[in-house]
Amino acid sequence: MDLDTIRAMDAADPLRDFRDRFELPDGVVYLDGNSLGALPKVTAARMADVVNREWGQDLIRSWNSNHWIEAPRRLGGKIARLIGAKDHEVVAADSTSINVFKALSAAVQLRPGRSIILSETGNFPTDAYMMQGLAHLSGGRIEQKLLPADQIPAALNDQVSVLLLTQTHYKTGRLHDMAALTRAAHAAGALVIWDLSHSAGALPVDLNGCQADFAIGCGYKYLNGGPGAPAFLFCAERHHGDVFPALSGWFGHAAPFAFDDSYEPGAGIDRFQCGTPGILGMAALECGLDLMLEAEMAAIRLKSQALGDLFIALCEDRLTGFALASPRDAAQRGSQVSIRHDEGYAIMQALIARGVIGDFRAPDILRFGFTPLYTRYEDVWLAIEALAEIMKTGEWREARFATRAAVT
Amino acid sequence: MDLDTIRAMDAADPLRDFRDRFELPDGVVYLDGNSLGALPKVTAARMADVVNREWGQDLIRSWNSNHWIEAPRRLGGKIARLIGAKDHEVVAADSTSINVFKALSAAVQLRPGRSIILSETGNFPTDAYMMQGLAHLSGGRIEQKLLPADQIPAALNDQVSVLLLTQTHYKTGRLHDMAALTRAAHAAGALVIWDLSHSAGALPVDLNGCQADFAIGCGYKYLNGGPGAPAFLFCAERHHGDVFPALSGWFGHAAPFAFDDSYEPGAGIDRFQCGTPGILGMAALECGLDLMLEAEMAAIRLKSQALGDLFIALCEDRLTGFALASPRDAAQRGSQVSIRHDEGYAIMQALIARGVIGDFRAPDILRFGFTPLYTRYEDVWLAIEALAEIMKTGEWREARFATRAAVT
Repeated sequence: MDLDTIRAMDAADPLRDFRDRFELPDGVVYLDGNSLGALPKVTAARMADVVNREWGQDLIRSWNSNHWIEAPRRLGGKIARLIGAKDHEVVAADSTSINVFKALSAAVQLRPGRSIILSETGNFPTDAYMMQGLAHLSGGRIEQKLLPADQIPAALNDQVSVLLLTQTHYKTGRLHDMAALTRAAHAAGALVIWDLSHSAGALPVDLNGCQADFAIGCGYKYLNGGPGAPAFLFCAERHHGDVFPALSGWFGHAAPFAFDDSYEPGAGIDRFQCGTPGILGMAALECGLDLMLEAEMAAIRLKSQALGDLFIALCEDRLTGFALASPRDAAQRGSQVSIRHDEGYAIMQALIARGVIGDFRAPDILRFGFTPLYTRYEDVWLAIEALAEIMKTGEWREARFATRAAVT
Repeated sequence: MDLDTIRAMDAADPLRDFRDRFELPDGVVYLDGNSLGALPKVTAARMADVVNREWGQDLIRSWNSNHWIEAPRRLGGKIARLIGAKDHEVVAADSTSINVFKALSAAVQLRPGRSIILSETGNFPTDAYMMQGLAHLSGGRIEQKLLPADQIPAALNDQVSVLLLTQTHYKTGRLHDMAALTRAAHAAGALVIWDLSHSAGALPVDLNGCQADFAIGCGYKYLNGGPGAPAFLFCAERHHGDVFPALSGWFGHAAPFAFDDSYEPGAGIDRFQCGTPGILGMAALECGLDLMLEAEMAAIRLKSQALGDLFIALCEDRLTGFALASPRDAAQRGSQVSIRHDEGYAIMQALIARGVIGDFRAPDILRFGFTPLYTRYEDVWLAIEALAEIMKTGEWREARFATRAAVT
């Protein structure tokens, strides 16, 4: 495998023209789109328009004239197409954490006689934390349980109201079998919430094909919605009418502008809105969604797997001392490859200093995300080149004692 | 009172130069800054910078290098200066509705033996709705009670855990006596949450002087933070250590990037953060805050009262058929004047068609907000002129059957 071969892969890539639709800084190999997606070029112009014209000139009238009021549903409908849902089953709103709470509190309400909310040890922390908050608030009626993934199926019993799992593990990229685990939960009478933060926009997801009950996910990773973009929530149509939302804000009311004293849930998915939507964030997220919807998800998945396979092959060919933390089988893996090294933190700092941006996850994981709309095969080559160079020169030793920085 | 006199008032206004710091569309008299504040000119450039440079070029590194991670606390500290709080008692986060839930769930936790959460009938609906959601989620342990304002003091007993009131009424602009009601609640052993949505940036607020326990409020009204801007939450320092947050997301964790399975509340006010903050919204809100902090709150209040007094005087001089819905005494009034008319909806539509933007609140209220940084005395004159003209020509009749539009 040489650079010519790799450049030929880029030349033959059916998605190659998408890269030019993104702003990417010179001299940077960006393999952290699973933490913050890159800026679509169109977003800059759209943000100027929403600020200057819609807010500045049209002011309050924009809620109607520029369709701000419809943004959560409109964006939800676009996200639905990426995750195998109907457009009236998804809403863009709030943060992923808040949406976890909405889904959890709805699920426990739908299974009133059951006390256990179940998830996986090592799941992305905010999922576990939001469960803990709900359990604490319940004053003992709800109990949180975290188990290693392989013990989950056996733990699904008639005391479990809901199973909350992240489809693509944030550290390793390991994929859960959504269909099988959903079936297992349903067989025990439990509901399932899927966290799609590292799945939506990264691989084909078929929520309704799997009979999923709820899902939540993130707008700022593979959906390229910008830092802290609005998140999303899916609730299967069959549950809509039975949920009285715990976060029953005025934007989820059946008639918000009637200003009644009493809350009446809005129709369908509308009841999962809460406060006034952040329109600037919505505008940026919509640009990311529109761009992604131009591509074929099957092509994205194919390239994502090829990028990951190439990374693993070059890694094993060129490097020693690293252990693969992700599944080797691309079918079992999301759109990232993680490798372990005891000096992972310092090595990642040295890589970033060379303009190769991945991220570090404690205690020892170097994580590289592949975003097929703008990641080239050559980027993978350059990343491995830099990594090999860093290990050869030992320059990572200088980064060893640098302050551990917070990156999301 | 003639136009020359009024123009002389504008010429003598110590805040007159602030108007030029805002984008205001030609031909519009904007009296709806209490629904959506106008765009500060500096915000457009700042938004381009946060999008193009911070997101586009610096990407994930911006969480540290451009201080995104500190935004909720940094903005909270700025808001604190407007509401009589210490900078470590306020955080900018989520929506007003979500923050109501955070404050309510914290307050009931601090008063575990008490079952009643109390508010006012006709309070801004989302406050009541969020109470209802919490009560529903509690499965009967918490009961929501809404009473007319004059019955609140007598209802404060040893079953009330928390009193939630909006300081400035959204419809009438009537001010509650924050100090007296907080004292009364405390005398009954209850806590108080103040909704400052129509107060922050509109008038001097002294939360700590009143010994308030919690407060929440809105970033997109008088703080000029943009549509759906992040909201804020105040928790008095004395309560920080005793609250285990119900919305216990990873951004409120003591060490978010340790990725532990178990939630440990962050120090102080940090625990009231939840998910990843929306950085685009934060950037716009910070521009509004910085601009507001250049002005003296005492000068803002003085002008706000004078604008309201002028509106009432001209209204009574020039119009018949309208009833004053706001307190006549400026000391009892926020930064708005509301008037009633049976045909209020149609009249407001006709006004908006003439470029005078206020808003309508069912069933019969025409609401006019005064934002002293950009509202001129002449704007009040022009609004009354237009209103008088509309009543004379009867052109409002044409707007009578227009679709009732949703505006926030």
